[in-house]
Order: sequence, then structure tokens, then C-alpha cells
Amino acid sequence: MKTIDLNADMGESFGPWVMGQDAALLKIVSSANIACGFHAGDADTMARTMDLALAAGVALGAHPGFADLQGFGRRRIKLSAAELTNLVQYQLGAAMGMSAARGARLAHFKLHGALANMASEDEGIARTCYAAALAVQPDLRLVVMPGTALDRAATALGAAQSAEIFADRTYNADGTLTDRSLPGAVIHDPQVAVCHVLGMLAAGGIVTPQGDVLQTRIDTICVHGDSAEALDIAGQLSDALQGQGYTIAAPR
Amino acid sequence: MKTIDLNADMGESFGPWVMGQDAALLKIVSSANIACGFHAGDADTMARTMDLALAAGVALGAHPGFADLQGFGRRRIKLSAAELTNLVQYQLGAAMGMSAARGARLAHFKLHGALANMASEDEGIARTCYAAALAVQPDLRLVVMPGTALDRAATALGAAQSAEIFADRTYNADGTLTDRSLPGAVIHDPQVAVCHVLGMLAAGGIVTPQGDVLQTRIDTICVHGDSAEALDIAGQLSDALQGQGYTIAAPR
Amino acid sequence: MKTIDLNADMGESFGPWVMGQDAALLKIVSSANIACGFHAGDADTMARTMDLALAAGVALGAHPGFADLQGFGRRRIKLSAAELTNLVQYQLGAAMGMSAARGARLAHFKLHGALANMASEDEGIARTCYAAALAVQPDLRLVVMPGTALDRAATALGAAQSAEIFADRTYNADGTLTDRSLPGAVIHDPQVAVCHVLGMLAAGGIVTPQGDVLQTRIDTICVHGDSAEALDIAGQLSDALQGQGYTIAAPR
Amino acid sequence: MKTIDLNADMGESFGPWVMGQDAALLKIVSSANIACGFHAGDADTMARTMDLALAAGVALGAHPGFADLQGFGRRRIKLSAAELTNLVQYQLGAAMGMSAARGARLAHFKLHGALANMASEDEGIARTCYAAALAVQPDLRLVVMPGTALDRAATALGAAQSAEIFADRTYNADGTLTDRSLPGAVIHDPQVAVCHVLGMLAAGGIVTPQGDVLQTRIDTICVHGDSAEALDIAGQLSDALQGQGYTIAAPR
Repeated sequence: MKTIDLNADMGESFGPWVMGQDAALLKIVSSANIACGFHAGDADTMARTMDLALAAGVALGAHPGFADLQGFGRRRIKLSAAELTNLVQYQLGAAMGMSAARGARLAHFKLHGALANMASEDEGIARTCYAAALAVQPDLRLVVMPGTALDRAATALGAAQSAEIFADRTYNADGTLTDRSLPGAVIHDPQVAVCHVLGMLAAGGIVTPQGDVLQTRIDTICVHGDSAEALDIAGQLSDALQGQGYTIAAPR
Repeated sequence: MKTIDLNADMGESFGPWVMGQDAALLKIVSSANIACGFHAGDADTMARTMDLALAAGVALGAHPGFADLQGFGRRRIKLSAAELTNLVQYQLGAAMGMSAARGARLAHFKLHGALANMASEDEGIARTCYAAALAVQPDLRLVVMPGTALDRAATALGAAQSAEIFADRTYNADGTLTDRSLPGAVIHDPQVAVCHVLGMLAAGGIVTPQGDVLQTRIDTICVHGDSAEALDIAGQLSDALQGQGYTIAAPR
Repeated sequence: MKTIDLNADMGESFGPWVMGQDAALLKIVSSANIACGFHAGDADTMARTMDLALAAGVALGAHPGFADLQGFGRRRIKLSAAELTNLVQYQLGAAMGMSAARGARLAHFKLHGALANMASEDEGIARTCYAAALAVQPDLRLVVMPGTALDRAATALGAAQSAEIFADRTYNADGTLTDRSLPGAVIHDPQVAVCHVLGMLAAGGIVTPQGDVLQTRIDTICVHGDSAEALDIAGQLSDALQGQGYTIAAPR
Repeated sequence: MKTIDLNADMGESFGPWVMGQDAALLKIVSSANIACGFHAGDADTMARTMDLALAAGVALGAHPGFADLQGFGRRRIKLSAAELTNLVQYQLGAAMGMSAARGARLAHFKLHGALANMASEDEGIARTCYAAALAVQPDLRLVVMPGTALDRAATALGAAQSAEIFADRTYNADGTLTDRSLPGAVIHDPQVAVCHVLGMLAAGGIVTPQGDVLQTRIDTICVHGDSAEALDIAGQLSDALQGQGYTIAAPR
């Protein structure tokens, strides 16, 4: 039996400000990456999101980022290894505590925004963040982008990993994402996104617009819910995958 | 063998701002109440404080407060039960995660500032905060003020408790602290503080300036390190207690 | 010629989080109450909102609140008079600086949320906040609720005032708003809201559901834009007022 | 008559956390660079600092930085030109409003920490920040480091400037400060600092440890008060300058 994971960022509301359509997305995905209060989310938002996810049978993951609410964690901030370690352990611990209070256990760990970008380029940063997370909960599954420093760091640490592809983004030949500001970097058409994902699953690797294939295991597919269009991509992708015999489920 | 615990608030620095003399105080106390980043402390301060406390063999505790950095958690904020629960679980989880990363386990839980004041007056608030904490870590020892709503809530929840007295504060007949703004409410003379504590231990209860005694178990004595005077009180109290045959140690 | 002001809270987005429909609302109202970054808004949001308002010919006002982003300034926080003064002057100054950079001058001043509620009940708080604002810019027009402590404080200070009524809220006999949690307190039907406002203008005062009239000058009507319904009320009210010969304009 | 300005950063406390010895330093300096609440300071600290400075006859200046309290504005954050503009105008406006409430007017403007470092290297950033400030208050005197992008930007904008040297820092040949992490970069001995400054005044320019001279006007000397040593440097420098016939005064 073939299973594949669909993951999405969630719990990105803050105080009175709503972001995303978590309830709708939770009917589609199998793993929820929950913002931990530094770049988005707050304790109340985290609680609501965890309750919704658990009710939907969706696996909980921690999704920490830089302490930059106004910038949504998308601005690069240079921190020391000790500061990165503490940044990760604090947020992860908060998410662990809140999930423990619900009788649940975090399944995965995924870096957010600029922190993820920096870690995907710099193995030292990736290793620091991942080692910090594993010191808190050693059985966390690390969500990595195949071929990047995230992948190498997780492998070097001997950690459980989820190799992730993006449904709505195109790739460069080295496995990195095409820059958002370039035309075509973000896929808006659900049919194109479905085709993009099925092509990668069939090829057993990341496929660039030029047809290059970077062989890799594929464990999880990242989808979004921040627009009607994104939600549409997620829904159609789920249908297509199930039509091809996949079960949508979090890794075990 | 007689043992008694000395506890103190710690890790109240923030970013570049130093507060307290944690290193000196850690040579005296047996339990450290660590600020969790909402009213004081930040992830880096927490990490340093935990490292220092563990090196000194001092038990770690979580010390959450309101999310009010400028007001140091001393301003009352009315929150719903759900908000209180999330406020406590987030901060406690963060502290748990950071201590787990050090191979340590939190021993106790003490509310800070206005949150502690409100909970000592309102059993509903106390019970909400304590139940929230125990849902995250059921074996946490709750630090309570004898005779207050904190005491009643902890008892109702069947939790392990530490009955706490204050070395440098005088009491009202009902076991509450004399208002800080009244003359004599805060004890500045180490000899007076030592005498105050030894008197309460001998009487087996809280003793008011008028000589009233409120019978209670006494498990832990709160001292401070935010001034040379406070540190002096802590040091002389420790000496006096050991002179009377007490071992200074965290409860087991 | 009859003129009346329509005012609305604006610039309540924060970072990546959008709140309200400012662009649509700016086509309807004549005065914009701009959040100043403590309970909502940030410097970038303020800048965008001021640019939009100036392009629409809408008067700029400062709308300060408590420093409580997660609580949207709706939680009561007890501050000293000095703290209130500084809270107001800091936010007002920030708004003044940003409007000065656009060659504009703030026209009015309106307190937000819990700060407004506390000031409407306590003349000392109202006077402190208003005096603080006038010390920064003496010609600010203070938006007051007739019959409340806000009204008395502004009058005592000899300040220019705008007496405000709410299009979508019902009143108690003393001029305070009916508690939001009571049925009927918030008006959702545009026709009812229009009727409510026209009735008050005709009666020359605040009219309660029981038919009581509290005589008062009416200078400005508060509308909202946080839902399609609210925007609809604002639009239909504007049409109705113009149909009755009113010009919608900020006070001079 | 020879006059020279002594300037120092002030108002860097936050909430309950004290930083610096502002009262002592205000007896020595003639210009106070007041933190504006983003990297340090809060509205209450600003108010107290302004009151102290005005009582001491010391000129008020705005000292804005990045919105990074934990990092004290010392971490580089990449912002767009619009974001930089709003960051500066918000903080400057807040300081203006609070000084206006005291019947005072800001005299100068100095960038803080990482924002100052980035602007000293990148004329685009310097120009954006300075133009933003001048749009709010056109007669502000800009504090610049001679020979850097700050100097060039201020000159291009035709603004009033204060050319600044540092009493306790050594220089590279291009006028930039020697990296703090290098030995000798920070001067700790008051006699050396006094000698360093008098040497630069005599040479009419910045003097490197190698004896190179970068000719420049010198209007103001930056001193610090964050340690007994720093305060000692400030005091001895003031004495030495007055001994040489200088009057310590803010530029007019």
C-alpha cells in the first residue's frame, strides 16, 4: 500500500488577526506544522489549532521561526549557535507542553521562513537547529528539503526524516526553490500543481521545468491554505493522489 | 533529619538587561523559580540560568507570569480560563523543553507577580492555572501560600505541594502578605528576617507582627537576590538554618 | 448647510495580518481614526493608511490604545497617571511625526478599546489622557461620547470636541452603550442602523430602545468596516444622510 | 571661544530593567541621544530621561534603532526603503511628541546600533533614514561619522550635521571604527581616551593608532555611561577639554 503525507503550515493567526483557513485545510492534510508564537501564532491560537488538528486526526508538528512577528519570520536575523539553539528549544518546548496537555505527542519538526532558508543554505545552522530539537525530543521526524543543507544535517545527525516537495513551487536544478520573485516560480493552477506533483512521484525525484530530475525519496508534500486557490490545489491534489491509490497519512 | 527548601526567583534578566545576582544566589538556595519569557527572561537567559542552576545542584522550577514585559508581570490582566490555561501551558512547556534538552526535569511550579496575586485571591483562577500545569507535567510540585486560594486549589487537585513562607515579608492574620506599601511590610534587616523565619518554623505556622499564629506546614522559604541586602538575608538565613540542624534541600 | 462627520477606526492591520477594508471605507467616511502601533497597526500599516486617507481627502486622527497586541487593546490594564500620559504622548507623537512627513496635520484624537471604556467611566483617566494629548498638539479635536466622563473631561479642559454617536450600537439611558453581550446591543441590519441614526439626529440626542432621549450635540457618527455588513451600514447611512441634505465632512 | 559637544546614548532602560547611569552622565554631556522604544527605552523611560535632560540643560536628540529589544538593536535586519522610512518616522515622531509635551524641541538625530552600522556602510540606507527624519523635522542636526556613508548622505541632503568622534574607540584608516572584537579597539583607560581625543582635536581629524590622519571637522564627541570606567572617561574628558579652554555645549 502506498502512503504519502500532505503537510501544511497552520496556526498562523495572531490575537484578533486571522490567517489561513485551517479548518478547511485540516480536512485535506495529514500533518500540521504549527506556528509557535514567535513569527506567528500565540498560545491561544496554538491551542485552538491543536484541538482542531487532533479532532481531524492530523499529526502535530512544531514550526518555529525567528522572533519577528511584524516580519512574519521572513527577515533574516543572524544569531549565534547558542541563540539558535535556545530559539528552537523554547518554541519546541512550548508546542510540546501544549500537545502533552492534550495527551498528544509532536510527530515532526519543520523550520519556518527565513530560518528555514538560512538553514537550507548553511549546514551549520541546520545542524544547530536540528540538534537543538532532537535534544528536546529525540524521536521527532525532521522535515527536510532533499539535496539541501537541511537534508545533509538531518542525515549527519541520524535523525528520522521526511523528504518534502512543494506542490505549488518550481525548482532549480540543485533542488532549491526557484526565487519567488521570478515568473512561474509559484504555481497557481491546481491542474498544473497536480501534474507537477504526480510527475515528481513518478520520476522518483524533484523535476525542474527544464526536465532535470534530482533523484530523492519523497515522503511529504507541502500545500497551503492561505487563499481559495491554494486550498483548491490542496483539495485537487488529495483527490488525484487517492485516485492513484495513495493513502494520505502522516509517516509513522 | 530536618530539611527545608530555600527558593528564589531567577532568570529575570532580559536581552542586554541584567536583573538579580543569580550566580551568587545559586550558592545559597535549593530551588530556582525560572522566569519563562513573558514577564521577564528570554530563551537565552533561561538557558544560562538553567545551566547555572544545574551546575549548582539547584532544582529547576517554572515561574510563569502575564505577558507584560514592560510591567514585569505586575499589572493585573483579566483573562478567560482558556487564556490562562494556554498562558501557563505555553510557558511551562518552553521551560520543560529547555530543561529536557539538559537532561533535567522540572521539579516545581510557582506563579509570578500579578498572576500569583490574583490566583491567591480567586480559587477559580488558581485551579485553572494549576490544572493547566499538571496537565502538562502531572508530578510538578506546586508552590502555594498556606491558607490562600492557591493552597485550596492545589489541595482540591490532589497535587504535590510546597507550603511557602517569605523571609522578608510580614503577614496579615489570614495568611496574606501585608501590603508592600505599608511601613514594615518588607523586612530589610537580615537579623530580623532570620528571627522571623525561625519563629515561624518554631511555631509551626505563619506568625503575624501581632503574634497571631496560622498553623501550617512549612516546606520552602522564599528569599530574594535583587539587592545586596536581599542576598545578605538569604545568606544569613541559610547559615542560621544550618546552625539549627536543617539541611537546605529541595523537596523530593 | 448641514454637515456631519462619519468616522471609522482604520489601520488595524499588523505585519502580514489584514484587518478591515480600509480602502472601501475611505470612500465613505470623512475621518479616519488611525491605530498607533500598540494595540494594532505598525509603522508600515500607519504609513499606508495615512497615504490612502490623504488621497481620499479624509481627515487623520490618532487612535491610541493599550500596549496589548494579542488582546487588541481590549483588556483593561491599570496604569498610573504618568504611565497613561506617556502611553498617549508616545503614540500620538508617532502619528504626528508620520503625518507631518506627509505634509499633513492630525485633526482629531480618539481613545481605543479598554482605554476608551475606562476613560468613559473615570473622569480622572479621561482628563489625564486628554491633557496628555493636548500637551502634544493643543488644537486636536477630542472625540467624546456625550454624557460620559470623556465629555466632562474634554469640557473641563476647554478642548475642541466632537460629540459622537454609534450607528450600530444601542444605548442605555445614561448615554453609555448597551453591553455587547446583550441581545440587540449590536445592530446588524443597515436599515435599522440608518433609522437609529436619523432618529437621533431628528431628536437632537441619544435615543434609547425605550424611547428615552438624552439631549446632546451630535458631530460625528462612528461606523465600521470590519465586515461586509458593517460596510453596508456605512454606505447606506452615508446615502441616507446625503439624501436628507447632509454633507459628509470632517469638522473644521 | 571654542565650544565642543559631548553626546551620549541615554534612556536605554526598559520597564524594570535599568541600564546606564543617566543622571550622572547628564552632569557631564551636552547632548542626550534618547532611545525611542524599539531597541531600548519605553514611553516611561523616555519621559523620565527627557525630564532629567531638560533639568540639566542638555539638548534632546532622537536615537532610533531596529525593533529588536532582545538584541538591543545590534542585529542587522534587512528592510526595504519604505520600511526604513516608517521605522525612523514613527520613532522620531514619538520622541518629538514627548518633547513637545515638555515645551522642548529635538535638536539632533543619531542612528543606533546595527542600523547605524548599516547606514555608515550604505549611502542608500543612510539617505533613506536621514530623508525620513528631515521630512518629519527639517531642522534636525544629523550626527554623522566623518568620511562614511552617513557623512555623504547628510551632505547630499544639505542637512545640518554634527561630525562625531568616539572617545573610547580606535579607528581604521578610512574613518570606520576598529572592529570591537579586535584587541585595543575599545579604550578603557581614561588617560588614554583623553589623549586620543585631544590628539584628534589638535590634528583636526581622526587619528589612527598608526598615526594616519583623516582631516575632518569635529563637532561632537561620543562618550558612554554604562560602566564606572566609561563614566570616568566622560568626566576626565570633560575636565581636560575645559582645561584647554573649551566650553562643553550642544551645537546651535
